[in-house]
Amino acid sequence: MPERSLRRAPAVERAARILDHLAQAGRPVGLSDLSRDLGVPKSSALGICETLVACGVLRPETEGYALSSHCLRWSAAYLSGTSLVSEFRRILLSDRGVSAYTVTLSTLDKDHVTYLDCRNSEQPLGFTFRAGLRLPAVYSATGKAMLAYISPEERRRLLSNPWPAPLTPNGSRDAQRFEDEMRLVRARGYAIDNGEIREGMICVGVPVMASSGQPSAGIAVSLTAAEATPERCDEIGARLSEVAASLALV
Amino acid sequence: MPERSLRRAPAVERAARILDHLAQAGRPVGLSDLSRDLGVPKSSALGICETLVACGVLRPETEGYALSSHCLRWSAAYLSGTSLVSEFRRILLSDRGVSAYTVTLSTLDKDHVTYLDCRNSEQPLGFTFRAGLRLPAVYSATGKAMLAYISPEERRRLLSNPWPAPLTPNGSRDAQRFEDEMRLVRARGYAIDNGEIREGMICVGVPVMASSGQPSAGIAVSLTAAEATPERCDEIGARLSEVAASLALV
Repeated sequence: MPERSLRRAPAVERAARILDHLAQAGRPVGLSDLSRDLGVPKSSALGICETLVACGVLRPETEGYALSSHCLRWSAAYLSGTSLVSEFRRILLSDRGVSAYTVTLSTLDKDHVTYLDCRNSEQPLGFTFRAGLRLPAVYSATGKAMLAYISPEERRRLLSNPWPAPLTPNGSRDAQRFEDEMRLVRARGYAIDNGEIREGMICVGVPVMASSGQPSAGIAVSLTAAEATPERCDEIGARLSEVAASLALV
Repeated sequence: MPERSLRRAPAVERAARILDHLAQAGRPVGLSDLSRDLGVPKSSALGICETLVACGVLRPETEGYALSSHCLRWSAAYLSGTSLVSEFRRILLSDRGVSAYTVTLSTLDKDHVTYLDCRNSEQPLGFTFRAGLRLPAVYSATGKAMLAYISPEERRRLLSNPWPAPLTPNGSRDAQRFEDEMRLVRARGYAIDNGEIREGMICVGVPVMASSGQPSAGIAVSLTAAEATPERCDEIGARLSEVAASLALV
């Protein structure tokens, strides 16, 4: 489709940004705030929001517009269209040595990872992963694992937005250092989030490679800094690679 | 907002219909099919789809456009913005006599119910409820329960589209008979899906009433026709009403 960049529907792009903004806010947002926060004229924002209300996608609340349950039908269709989640669960049931840990499955959505599923360990880390949670890819183990296995050009394109603000003092904004880390991930076969999402929590992640040769998802194990010895990380990385190889076949 | 019906964004309405269509199809759909199925000019559909691709909401696949994991962020935000799901789980944990059955929580989305959560019994009915599943409200127990407690005008408005096709021989298209059933639901305090979603499966549903006096959700128990004696339905209806009263306070 060569005309990909040509014909755009500006109102649709604004609608998607409004939905993203409401999702990020986590509460109803009024028209004036939406218009100001997104730099969209109030009349345009009104037309788009009222159209989304008429379609059932937004609900008008006294405090402003809120997302409705309508969005669930789109996400449920996405999830049932991918066998990744059911296979992830099936493989974890038959356990390959990672059952003691929290294990997550996520995909790359531009420069963020979106969690598709999570099998929480019985010893929670206090960090609750849930489907739909989004985190900056450059700080997450699955994000780094997936980014390491795409072309440098594609990686540059995905990371062309402003570098996300670190979530902890361990996060680095240094793009060159990140490229060095990408090489290390490929050499070692797994990526590490070294307390970059939450201090004291280490995650080990590997990519799930699709038949196209591109990563289709990532899986990771979360453990405490005390548990994460280099030997244990190597061991978990190897076991996750086995799980990822099974998932790659679905 | 008096101008609700005036200012609309036609491209946004088409975008929402495209997402709904892809969700219903459950597989990638090509541009020509989208254009034909939705009665939208191909050039307009192309612009909207490519905008949604640029926003990360759709993925281009070889067979056509597909929903991406981006939709999960909207549904996750909706779910975390409502305490209904967490309270539903908490209440069911402390069990009020419905633990032996599959219990579902859903909301009304125009003339359909959308399932928000489900606690499957250990003796499955073979009918898997999952979050995001949508069913015609007029045939489901929670849908009937919620429809019975809104005004006749609002009910007529919600049901103004063509009456949904019955899913089983037990479903009726008779709107007058449905109004009679609405009166019965209010008199009895609970609604019954009498094998209208699946033959041999009976569901008992009650509304969760918000402080506004309008139903905010519905909860239902599913049982087999053999289990569903009138006495047991009465008993379950009474117990569900207790759960709904607790949920109404959240």
